[in-house]
Amino acid sequence: MPSTNWTRHHILSLADFTPAEYDTVLQTAASFQEVLSRRTKKVPTLQGQVVANLFFEPSTRTRSSFELAAKRLSADTLNFASATSSMTKGETILDTAKTYLAMGTDIMVIRHKEAGVPNAIAEEMDRLGVKVSVLNAGDGQHEHPSQALLDLFTICTLLDPDHPRLELLKDKKIAIVGDILHSRVARSNIWSLTATGAELHLAAPPTLLPKLFADYGKDRPGKLFLHWQLEPALIDADFVMTLRLQKERMSANLLPSLREYHQMFGITRSKLQLCKPNVKVLHPGPVNRGVEISSDLMDDPEFSLIQTQVTSGVAVRMALLYLIGSGKVA
Amino acid sequence: MPSTNWTRHHILSLADFTPAEYDTVLQTAASFQEVLSRRTKKVPTLQGQVVANLFFEPSTRTRSSFELAAKRLSADTLNFASATSSMTKGETILDTAKTYLAMGTDIMVIRHKEAGVPNAIAEEMDRLGVKVSVLNAGDGQHEHPSQALLDLFTICTLLDPDHPRLELLKDKKIAIVGDILHSRVARSNIWSLTATGAELHLAAPPTLLPKLFADYGKDRPGKLFLHWQLEPALIDADFVMTLRLQKERMSANLLPSLREYHQMFGITRSKLQLCKPNVKVLHPGPVNRGVEISSDLMDDPEFSLIQTQVTSGVAVRMALLYLIGSGKVA
Amino acid sequence: MPSTNWTRHHILSLADFTPAEYDTVLQTAASFQEVLSRRTKKVPTLQGQVVANLFFEPSTRTRSSFELAAKRLSADTLNFASATSSMTKGETILDTAKTYLAMGTDIMVIRHKEAGVPNAIAEEMDRLGVKVSVLNAGDGQHEHPSQALLDLFTICTLLDPDHPRLELLKDKKIAIVGDILHSRVARSNIWSLTATGAELHLAAPPTLLPKLFADYGKDRPGKLFLHWQLEPALIDADFVMTLRLQKERMSANLLPSLREYHQMFGITRSKLQLCKPNVKVLHPGPVNRGVEISSDLMDDPEFSLIQTQVTSGVAVRMALLYLIGSGKVA
Repeated sequence: MPSTNWTRHHILSLADFTPAEYDTVLQTAASFQEVLSRRTKKVPTLQGQVVANLFFEPSTRTRSSFELAAKRLSADTLNFASATSSMTKGETILDTAKTYLAMGTDIMVIRHKEAGVPNAIAEEMDRLGVKVSVLNAGDGQHEHPSQALLDLFTICTLLDPDHPRLELLKDKKIAIVGDILHSRVARSNIWSLTATGAELHLAAPPTLLPKLFADYGKDRPGKLFLHWQLEPALIDADFVMTLRLQKERMSANLLPSLREYHQMFGITRSKLQLCKPNVKVLHPGPVNRGVEISSDLMDDPEFSLIQTQVTSGVAVRMALLYLIGSGKVA
Repeated sequence: MPSTNWTRHHILSLADFTPAEYDTVLQTAASFQEVLSRRTKKVPTLQGQVVANLFFEPSTRTRSSFELAAKRLSADTLNFASATSSMTKGETILDTAKTYLAMGTDIMVIRHKEAGVPNAIAEEMDRLGVKVSVLNAGDGQHEHPSQALLDLFTICTLLDPDHPRLELLKDKKIAIVGDILHSRVARSNIWSLTATGAELHLAAPPTLLPKLFADYGKDRPGKLFLHWQLEPALIDADFVMTLRLQKERMSANLLPSLREYHQMFGITRSKLQLCKPNVKVLHPGPVNRGVEISSDLMDDPEFSLIQTQVTSGVAVRMALLYLIGSGKVA
Repeated sequence: MPSTNWTRHHILSLADFTPAEYDTVLQTAASFQEVLSRRTKKVPTLQGQVVANLFFEPSTRTRSSFELAAKRLSADTLNFASATSSMTKGETILDTAKTYLAMGTDIMVIRHKEAGVPNAIAEEMDRLGVKVSVLNAGDGQHEHPSQALLDLFTICTLLDPDHPRLELLKDKKIAIVGDILHSRVARSNIWSLTATGAELHLAAPPTLLPKLFADYGKDRPGKLFLHWQLEPALIDADFVMTLRLQKERMSANLLPSLREYHQMFGITRSKLQLCKPNVKVLHPGPVNRGVEISSDLMDDPEFSLIQTQVTSGVAVRMALLYLIGSGKVA
């Protein structure tokens, strides 16, 4: 692993991530990507440490990714899913977290449907003066830092497999398309993709992209643009990031039919003609085929980075667990 | 472990299993049975490999057996149960499988309530040109190969503990009794038990054993007989395999009462009088006591092989994971 | 680990625990507490052994504690939760246990909502002449031995960190407050806390503390007192153990409102004035804040041992698994 000056104890948000931190994550993930290509894919880095996945909102995909990352670092893992928890017994979330702390948890990976829960737990841990680290695995519509970091790693590794780094984004045009209003993934991505001199274009129907999103671009190195139509975001784009559409949004009258949405904002082969010839498409998954993206495009390795994102996810999560966890072992 | 010429990449069905393949599985399972009798029951064979149990239809018993087999081979395991999956989020089953592939899964153990799902996933993996193996852990009413192989191992190990092999079945009479129509276990067992010169007798009420089952016996080394009464199947039988009766069948008018079913097709001590003196009874579990088999008979180690089947299950599943998995490591 | 003369094969109840057994558990747990303070928190003691957590009644907290204890002893763990079990398929509980036995389980940790289930399984295992051990993780309103032992360890470690032992309780006054009638924790605690010359005071409303509880004190070294008011139990108490109040009790008319209960039997800073100056408060968790105990008191490390109890839980459960498990390995 690269020697680092990593000092961040919790990973809760990308809002204040520094370029040096992004580069450390990218470089560390690249090292683990290399480990994952070996015959023996495990390293003893976190042996004896406990990673607890506290998923108050269930997610098999993200939980499996974190669990595998932890196991490949030789950590012991504990899984908690709210369905079988004592939440129903009247215990508070902070009490649950403190129970896992008292059992000897070193890193808590937390997902919750309400924004701010991981922050609240991290604050409580700091107040108690304990060394446990908190990693936000998605909180309400707030942030999903590990997803945005794996997106970043996927893009930068494509641009320079040997040395992925933030500055590779400079002068790139990246579009984020879809339900930005309700997306924690989009918010984390806005932070990472404006951290250097890239052009970031958000595109969505007006109901899903309020004007106040322009504020995210203030005082950022990159430039942020808002569009209520797809086309201007796609023109000459290097990367197109699509977002999952929660079908519940329909009933809330925020959207017309799925078919109409797909026609206006769904990514298809023909719409990609507007982009750069080498354009690549990303999606955090799970995909509604034929809604956010046409089914054949999703499966086309010439354009789709969706599978690569999943693979990157394990390496990036190994990197994050390593960076916040290795200090405790040393 | 025995040196093998194993070439099969997925284990989906026993329909085309060769005698040599059966013997390799039996011999390899015997080696692992020996490992399991040692003080240290683990071997490092699959260290660093990932076995994902993708159980779209829940089953604690079979999942635990595969999980333990994988752990004893030192693999890392991931468990997926459909209740907490993104199935409900609209993702297709193939997309779920591809997500686990992209995370780095080496072997997928798949159970689904629809026939053909493991085959479809295996085909997709082959189409993608990836090395991941698929193991069918039960698909609809189609097949359940590992159950039939552990049944075979249980029988052959009883006949020759030191050298279990397919030819030991020659000239044996084996009865399969119960809801054959709806049983994936029965279908897999029909393939394995007609793979050599045994006599296989199926017995069930006509509603649960259509005539077309006779086709399974065409061009097979063994002979297949159908009976709509129990007695002719039992006469001089060496082994009686009973099948689980899904109580839902009653409401579908396929069966009279449970009591009547037990009277006609339930296995009891007195009915076993028709069989060979050393007859043994098998059941894939879980048993409805007093329905498929009388409660006292189930617990009588002189007749019942039911516990032995469960123990064999771990050794046979270790063998299967080893055979399809070790190629990838080498 | 200390060399021991441990002979108990199952841990089902504390009713017949000897002082020597308590001391062995305390001493062994102290050794593991020391292991848990090291950089590498794992020991290879139970490598290759299988610990199955059979939780017919779900409990994330207790299951995680046992799972972590087993993993830190390097055992392989299997988790079973009744929601996904074949219980719904008509299999008996004994059949489920025998299935896990046949798979190769060495230690079964069992929780069930009915009293006596762990005993019944242990009896069946003994009848079968097998070496598997059963550990009661809570059965109905009967017992919860590991909870009472971790409470004991928490108290004795506070009194003498270097050498926790039962005799430290001598001449101490301990109060147990709350829903004693329905509490398996209270019953196990009554056995352990009357095993030496302590004074144990039970306090609850008459509906939750029938007179027959006095019988538990017969022929015990310690003295047992019953109170239907809180104050006499608190006067000069060294330790106050509070119990979780199941809110369902309200609807059964066993209790007035929660507010009234808290006023009469809830532990607050001002009520603690009646106790010894160094009094400590315990609770098995999860806590209903502001019901059994005031919220600020629960979080005050000067008085509350609640977090320490959780930490002790892992060390005590490691000790129990070690004591019943190591015989099998040797």
